Amino acid sequence: MTKKKTVKWAHKDLLGLEYLSREDIELLLDTAESFREILDRKIKKVPALRGKTVVNLFYEPSTRTRVSFEVAAKRLSADVINIAVESSSVKKGETLNDTGRNIEALKADIIVVRHNCSGAATMLARNVNISVINAGDGWHEHPTQALLDIFTLRKKTGKLEGLNVSIVGDIAHSRVARSNIWGLTKFGVKVTVCAPKILIPPEIEKMGVKITDNIDEALADADAINVLRMQFERDDMKAFPTQLEYFRNFGVTEDRLKKSKKNIIVMHPGPINRGVEISSQVADGANSVILEQVTNGIAVRMAVLFWVSQTKDKDVHTKHEVVNEATY
Amino acid sequence: MTKKKTVKWAHKDLLGLEYLSREDIELLLDTAESFREILDRKIKKVPALRGKTVVNLFYEPSTRTRVSFEVAAKRLSADVINIAVESSSVKKGETLNDTGRNIEALKADIIVVRHNCSGAATMLARNVNISVINAGDGWHEHPTQALLDIFTLRKKTGKLEGLNVSIVGDIAHSRVARSNIWGLTKFGVKVTVCAPKILIPPEIEKMGVKITDNIDEALADADAINVLRMQFERDDMKAFPTQLEYFRNFGVTEDRLKKSKKNIIVMHPGPINRGVEISSQVADGANSVILEQVTNGIAVRMAVLFWVSQTKDKDVHTKHEVVNEATY
Amino acid sequence: MTKKKTVKWAHKDLLGLEYLSREDIELLLDTAESFREILDRKIKKVPALRGKTVVNLFYEPSTRTRVSFEVAAKRLSADVINIAVESSSVKKGETLNDTGRNIEALKADIIVVRHNCSGAATMLARNVNISVINAGDGWHEHPTQALLDIFTLRKKTGKLEGLNVSIVGDIAHSRVARSNIWGLTKFGVKVTVCAPKILIPPEIEKMGVKITDNIDEALADADAINVLRMQFERDDMKAFPTQLEYFRNFGVTEDRLKKSKKNIIVMHPGPINRGVEISSQVADGANSVILEQVTNGIAVRMAVLFWVSQTKDKDVHTKHEVVNEATY
Repeated sequence: MTKKKTVKWAHKDLLGLEYLSREDIELLLDTAESFREILDRKIKKVPALRGKTVVNLFYEPSTRTRVSFEVAAKRLSADVINIAVESSSVKKGETLNDTGRNIEALKADIIVVRHNCSGAATMLARNVNISVINAGDGWHEHPTQALLDIFTLRKKTGKLEGLNVSIVGDIAHSRVARSNIWGLTKFGVKVTVCAPKILIPPEIEKMGVKITDNIDEALADADAINVLRMQFERDDMKAFPTQLEYFRNFGVTEDRLKKSKKNIIVMHPGPINRGVEISSQVADGANSVILEQVTNGIAVRMAVLFWVSQTKDKDVHTKHEVVNEATY
Repeated sequence: MTKKKTVKWAHKDLLGLEYLSREDIELLLDTAESFREILDRKIKKVPALRGKTVVNLFYEPSTRTRVSFEVAAKRLSADVINIAVESSSVKKGETLNDTGRNIEALKADIIVVRHNCSGAATMLARNVNISVINAGDGWHEHPTQALLDIFTLRKKTGKLEGLNVSIVGDIAHSRVARSNIWGLTKFGVKVTVCAPKILIPPEIEKMGVKITDNIDEALADADAINVLRMQFERDDMKAFPTQLEYFRNFGVTEDRLKKSKKNIIVMHPGPINRGVEISSQVADGANSVILEQVTNGIAVRMAVLFWVSQTKDKDVHTKHEVVNEATY
Repeated sequence: MTKKKTVKWAHKDLLGLEYLSREDIELLLDTAESFREILDRKIKKVPALRGKTVVNLFYEPSTRTRVSFEVAAKRLSADVINIAVESSSVKKGETLNDTGRNIEALKADIIVVRHNCSGAATMLARNVNISVINAGDGWHEHPTQALLDIFTLRKKTGKLEGLNVSIVGDIAHSRVARSNIWGLTKFGVKVTVCAPKILIPPEIEKMGVKITDNIDEALADADAINVLRMQFERDDMKAFPTQLEYFRNFGVTEDRLKKSKKNIIVMHPGPINRGVEISSQVADGANSVILEQVTNGIAVRMAVLFWVSQTKDKDVHTKHEVVNEATY
């Protein structure tokens, strides 16, 4: 952390990119830049959160996100407690708020919550004084995924303003798409969403995005493409045509990339379905930054954990109105 | 730890409050008092168990108790290994004693065991030389829950002698009730148990408690009430009338509290069933210490982990007869 | 670590004893000897892997092996991340290689992998630049189990050359047997395998072992016997006669031991089936080293984790051709 400037971080929680300003997001990205360098060192650990406890409270299974937060917290020297709902007292009928207040009473410092209901993280954050980080709530937001996407994009291109980014896939059910749209548009990125018509949510254009159901159109001017995972294992996808048909019509392949900008950046939040939404050649090809996204995800989550814990350090408990001045 | 007195802790294990003297319990409560202060510090960690390994061996799912022990052990700088039985070799038919001896052979220091059979912790403790802490065995005992209940009561009232405490709920199947009765009566607390007649175990009066099936009677003179969770999800509760009927007859509500002592302390081991054994108004009200119990649980478990590990440090392996002199 | 000699450890991974030289194995055993001493100290922790991350990636449930690696890694001060496949994105169809490359992208240092397919660990190791330790792959190898068996044998007997070791049980489906045969024969140990004929794999004699289906013959000249667990819960064992019949014909009992060498060493990889492949008297008797094996397993796994991480420290990424010079 070589830069010296006085910054304001005003949030107890990270609930969604909708609620952050461009300056908030830039602060997180700049801090993540510092942490990203640490990840290339031999000893990849810093004592920033020593003595703090981070609880991963997961109501949906998600190895990727849980492990990424666990690694990020441990790199900051925090203690990590994993709670998966299947084997927990939640089954016995305890409410999310009661579970949250119990975790607060354990004197934990941060709850990282993944929940299948939109708004779950926000409700929880209002009911506890400790920090809540949204690790994905229903179809609402997945802010740390979008932050790592934006971080990766900024790192690759130098600046975000004026870029064209296309998001391809099941936009209707995607918290990743929503968080990306909230975040990218704050930086003046022009966002296009591309999906079969039934997977485009009504009134999405009000978020300031262009819509197309033509993958070639989505690729034409794009500086970057963010390919979403098609979750054919979901019940409400049963009515959908076959995976092969999806691949033919929307799959991101080398042939399609040939007609796009030469340096187009290919992103995917993972886990990838080879031969469904993306071909293996593209996933493993020169334009793909998919694995860099994973590494950057650690740095971004370290930054989020760091900043929300800083707010707590000041013992300012006024929810959502906290202003924290810190030098970093 | 400001006090200086020579104390004796004579136990390799913590199996139940039945087997502890009043002095033993006071030592644990006094030590917990010291640890409780640490929990309000910014860095909530002490190096007391650095290099020690605590194994959470859970044959029943219990997020609350497992997490509480995990947090307590990590606050003492111990390494923690979680073993849940569902995904373990126990399925393949290994006996509890063999599993215990294997954990001992891993050079772990403390086993925290939760088991659905009464006596499981005691059997295990006899078969290994390392410390065993009973985290709940069948309907037998749940000593750390009772210790945190007693700790909370003492903290709130200043002294235990002469208090009236009523325990309300499924006494017949409750290890929490049994451990509370063993512990409280050693301090001269007058205990009343209150439940529908079918949920009062035969000969419970021999434990030195009064019995009633009238909730108002149980509340009348009580300085504190300990409300047990009604586990309607259990098979042997199928014959029982509806949850609503239980709530009407035994639920702890504001109306009922109005007729009790003004400062009555309301406790619950959690997780609470709102509208079953307790109303939301009471659970969240001024008399409730339910969340304080959770915090105190960390301090009490830190004290138990600390003392059983001290016994081991002296390398005195004579089971159940060990005397350890320590200054704290 | 009192000895001073320059040694060469040339492997990014530990995939199987087939691929190690006698010198490689001796290096691991000698290092394990040093770590074994640490396990008897009061503080059983060393900082060798501080700041490193070990990921336990288990596609089969195995409490024993997972916990042993977790304890070993924590004794070396590494951070440990557990991934069990049941609750992971693997379910969603991600390939093993993609999962591995994602773990690499998290900047983890070592993957400990257990998989039901033979060759899985080798495939994974070829696809990532970080170290892979095989914790059991199908019927192929379980090298750390064999290393701890050999370590225990060497510790008990002083030298391996010329010993007679019999392995009894389901040889056909046993990765433990295969790894033991590869390892032991490199030290000039004479290995006999003993099983019902249907459980002896074709062409096993090409591995340089004697074959018998007579347990008394297997015991006659043996300096040590390694009793494998009979997995009657497996589907393909349904055709097999009853457990009792197996016990009568192949069970290692006191009566049978009376006819063998007086100091015969009885080993078992655990968990044991009392009364199936071994009697309780033998398992708990004077010849049994079963629990010592468990303790030695920590030391051996510490040695393996240490050496594969040393290779990485040199940042030599040329797979399978790395040469690392270190003084220990």
